[in-house]
This record gives sequence, C-alpha cells and structure tokens, in this order.
Amino acid sequence: MRGAILHAPRDVRVEQREDPKIEQATDVIIRLAATCVCGSDLWPYRGIEPVGGPAPMGHEYAGIVEETGRDVRDIKPGQFVIGSFFASDNTCEICQAGYQTSCLHRQPVGAIGTQAEYARIPLADGTLVATPDVPSDDLVPSLLAASDVLGTGWFGAVAADVQPGKTVAVVGDGAVGLLAVLAANQLGAGRIIAMSRHEPRQKLALEFGATDIVTERGDAGVAAVKELTGGLGAHSVIEAVGTQESMMQAIRSARPGGHVGYVGVAHDVELPGQELFFSHAHLHGGPAPVRRFLPELIDLICARAIDPGRVFDLTLPLDQAAEGYRAMDERRAIKTLLRP
Amino acid sequence: MRGAILHAPRDVRVEQREDPKIEQATDVIIRLAATCVCGSDLWPYRGIEPVGGPAPMGHEYAGIVEETGRDVRDIKPGQFVIGSFFASDNTCEICQAGYQTSCLHRQPVGAIGTQAEYARIPLADGTLVATPDVPSDDLVPSLLAASDVLGTGWFGAVAADVQPGKTVAVVGDGAVGLLAVLAANQLGAGRIIAMSRHEPRQKLALEFGATDIVTERGDAGVAAVKELTGGLGAHSVIEAVGTQESMMQAIRSARPGGHVGYVGVAHDVELPGQELFFSHAHLHGGPAPVRRFLPELIDLICARAIDPGRVFDLTLPLDQAAEGYRAMDERRAIKTLLRP
Repeated sequence: MRGAILHAPRDVRVEQREDPKIEQATDVIIRLAATCVCGSDLWPYRGIEPVGGPAPMGHEYAGIVEETGRDVRDIKPGQFVIGSFFASDNTCEICQAGYQTSCLHRQPVGAIGTQAEYARIPLADGTLVATPDVPSDDLVPSLLAASDVLGTGWFGAVAADVQPGKTVAVVGDGAVGLLAVLAANQLGAGRIIAMSRHEPRQKLALEFGATDIVTERGDAGVAAVKELTGGLGAHSVIEAVGTQESMMQAIRSARPGGHVGYVGVAHDVELPGQELFFSHAHLHGGPAPVRRFLPELIDLICARAIDPGRVFDLTLPLDQAAEGYRAMDERRAIKTLLRP
Repeated sequence: MRGAILHAPRDVRVEQREDPKIEQATDVIIRLAATCVCGSDLWPYRGIEPVGGPAPMGHEYAGIVEETGRDVRDIKPGQFVIGSFFASDNTCEICQAGYQTSCLHRQPVGAIGTQAEYARIPLADGTLVATPDVPSDDLVPSLLAASDVLGTGWFGAVAADVQPGKTVAVVGDGAVGLLAVLAANQLGAGRIIAMSRHEPRQKLALEFGATDIVTERGDAGVAAVKELTGGLGAHSVIEAVGTQESMMQAIRSARPGGHVGYVGVAHDVELPGQELFFSHAHLHGGPAPVRRFLPELIDLICARAIDPGRVFDLTLPLDQAAEGYRAMDERRAIKTLLRP
C-alpha cells in the first residue's frame, strides 16, 4: 500500500509500505476513507520533536473495516468506523472513568501511521465506534474530524466546565481551537471569545458560534478578555496551543474559581505554583479521551447538527501529503484532508 | 490591649498595642475568645518570608462582638462569631460563586493581627458567621479551628472532589492535613491514606478517619499509594504542604482523571507542564474560601458531630505566644491555641 513517511524534518514522502496484517486477535484492518494532518504532526515535521529515522505518520482515521481478528466481537467487516489516536480496551477502570487515553492497555495509533491506504487498529472493540450506516461521502470529513480535532476541542470544553449561559474564552485558532468554539456553542455557552489574529480563522470561529474576537495575545489578550467580562475574566478558558505563553494567557484569562481546559500538548511549559495558587483556577486537560465522546459526536454529525469537517480547508490526494504538510506549516491551510 | 508582634525571625513578643477602633461603617470589634498560631505564620517566623519591621501576627479568630459600625445589619453585639483570614463582602459575583478569598473587596485579616485581645473585623456582615447561641467553653477550640485550618482542610477535600466510597490520599500531616482527613471522612470517602511519619499525628489521623498510614515520602510515597490502589493511584489527593516535593507527590499519587486539591501555600513551586498534561489530573486549590463552608462547619461542631479542636495539642495564655511559636517550629506541637 501507499503511506506517508517522515524521513527528516520537512521531508515527508508517500511511499510503498507493507500492507498491514492482523497481529493480535483483537486487531482489525481498515481501509481509510480519509485521513489528515494534525497540528501535532508539525512538531516532528519542524524538527522541534526529534525524528529518529523514517517514521510512518498520521493518527487520525475513518474508514471501512476490511478484516477482523478472531477475538473481535462487536466490530464487523463492512462497517464504517472511527477511532481515536490511542487504542484502548474501554473496559479497564480508567477507561470506565472516561480517560481512555490513559487506558491501562493503551496503544498509540501514531506508531502505526494512518496517513496510508490501510491501517491496523488494535483493541478494535474498545477503540472503534461504527456509524449506523455507511455514511454519504459528504459526511466523511466531519466523521474524520471526530477522530481527533473535534474530540479534542470537545474535551477542552468539557475540561473547562463550559456551562449554559456562561462566558468561554478560547486560546488558539488552529483546528482544535476552532472546534472548541463549536463545542462550547453546542454545550450552551452564552458568550464565546475566540482569540485569533487570522481573518479566515476568525470567520470560521464566528460561523462556529464565537460571539467576540480578540486579536491581542499575551497580557494584552488577557486585558481584552477582562475588559469583555466586567474585569472578572471568563468562567471557562480552553487552551489549544501548548506553549508557556498560551498557558499563562489561559490561566490569567479565567476568573477566580474559573476553569481552564488545556488540550494543546505542552512543550517547555513550567507553571508557577504561587500564581496558580492565588489564581483560584481549576486546571484540567491532557490527551483528549476522544473515545468518551465519539458516540455523541457521531450522532450529532450524522444528524447534520454540526459540521466540524469545515476545518479542512485543503483536500489533497494522499500522494500529495508533502504539500499538505507544507500548507499547514506555512499557515496557508488550517487543516489538510488526505484522500487515499 | 495586648497583642503578638513579630519583630524579626524567631522574635515574637506580646506587647501593648493600641485598642482597635471602628474605622469603616461596616467594621465590628470583637473580643477574642481564642486565637492560634498557623503553619503559615511559621514562614515569616523562620525568615523564609521577609519580615519588614514589626508586624502584628495572627489571622484566625473566634469571639464575642463588642461594637458594630453603623452599616452593620446582621451581626449584633454579644454574638459569638467566627470569620476567615480574608474579610469578604459575600455579595460580589466571585463571592456568590463561592470564592470569598478572591472577593473583589477582600481585605487580609493578617494585616490586622488577631493574636491579641481584640480585633477589628472589616466587612462584618459578609465575613462573620454567628453561632446560634454563645457556645460552651469546650466548643471554642473547634469553632476557632473552623476559622482556618478546618475550613482549609475541608476546601482541600472539596477541591479534590472527594466522593463517597472513593480513595483519598492526604499529603501533609500538619493541622490542615489532619483536618483534611476529617473532612474526607465526613464527605464519605471509602479509604483515606494519611501520609505521615510522626507517631502522634498518625494517631490523630486514624482517629479522624484515616484507614491507612504511609510513612514514605516522594517517589517512595507515590509507590506506596499505588501499591494500596491496585497500581492506579488515588481518586482524590489533598496537598497540604506547599513545596515542590509535596506537589509532585500529590500529582503523581492521583490516578489518571483523578483530582488533586492543593491548599498548602505554594513556595518556589514550578509544575512541569508536560508531566501535568499526561497525568490527566484535575488540579484545583488556592487560599481556601472558608466563608463558603462556615455555616455547615459551625452546625457540625455545635451538634458535636466533629471535634476538629483536637488539633490543638498545646494551649497557652496569649502572653506565652513566643513559646507557642517555638513549639510548632520544633514540631513539638501540631498547633498552639492562645487564650487572651
């Protein structure tokens, strides 16, 4: 099969890879309907995370089940399925508490590489959720978005305890930040402040339900959020970047007793204990347990109540993955969908 | 009147101070039935926090209202009252959300100094809660404990989301940690792991409801908690120290998706963002909004359902405050009560 391989920073090639095979009795093989490039793929692409030799890329996926291992009971060949970037058994105590990305038996799908024609998905019964029917093609981008960016933005909103009628600020205007706006809107937020300085992203944020746009960053961004909230700060702040500046901006934008949900993978972040203490903020986040939300998100998408696939503003054949990475790296695209 | 003054590290003297007077129309003057020395008083006493000239000491108080300002409506002369270490209006949006220690009009009682015969309490109607009747003398230590250490331990348990039947670990065996054990027990915890290496404190922890004692600290302490919880960690962890080691011990003792409530005032603490991210912990804490809990705590004490005053293992006349500080500094006493 064909699949994307990162050889070195900024060197992504689509090459012949070995076809995946069932390795464990709980595996399935899926044929990808669509896959995509994640903001977190840009960390190794940019050389900020080390690249230790040729690495298969991609951890987002939606597609048709081709083959199932002999212990797979619920997932059937021919089903259209979506899963998350960590395979999980969905039965251990941690999964049952809703933290499937910390499953006691979790396996990273990133090591498998889903920017490809086919993928082996471990722990299939725990990991995958099937759609009621094979969906029409126009729903595929949104279902693919549920695999990570939508689920991650949604977790950000849940971790930030978004409540009906309350004020939410979103730090970060990547696909996750934009879908956190959509999630906050679905969860009934009264006011949603999107922090963005890029006109096309501002536009999408407004279409997803943002009520206010703040273009300032850092201390000026915090001051702008305070200005919009009677000096108090937001009830909920969703952090979707993962830098020191964005984390501090998020914490300082929350009112005392407010909630910060952080889903940007932290890079070189150190939180000052004393400031956090006196901030009175709640802090929660981490790798989004997307599996917790998948059934609900799939229902919303299939009912056409939400259209998260709109974050894909570039669609390319898989063979042009390199251009898909470049466009995101240069911020010409919010998110690239790849069609195998 | 007589009152304790810190002149320099380890130099506390009880001296003649000016009698407090009503300054604002919302003030009251109370005659202290009892006051005490706080773990946080030891920071300046030990010179870890700078001492900028002679400072009146103490922020914990319970006593009889002597005089009320002309705008005080609810609090009456002759009532026995308890308040917290921050005066708060209890009407602003932040107070109404339960974060009175971040009240928009808060005033630190520590600047007034309640280790004295009398004290001026600002924003009296918002700050003070009166007991139904003037309590019998044996209830005074417990009511005084409600002013800070009990309320702080209780907030730690609430911030750590203690739930009926669940497992709680408590890092820190000072008065706050011990009362966090009591709080966790009242909130229905199924198992309470107290982390302490001091025999008298272990004993009190067990009497307050601890089911397990862990004497190890740091990584060994974390390993012991994991061992007791099937490898997962505690559902809730209460941090009641405020050092880098204790914070990391608390975060690492929580299971993925677990809750850490931290009430030890953070000193030189830096939380590593990436570890926090992958821990999946909830983090909440800060200066305890004791006012939120005072009505409930006073009810429990007056009904003799809890006896938090037992943390006072040394009672001295106010004039011997210096010995009270020394005994706590040398860990000969858990907490010193001072009788004016």
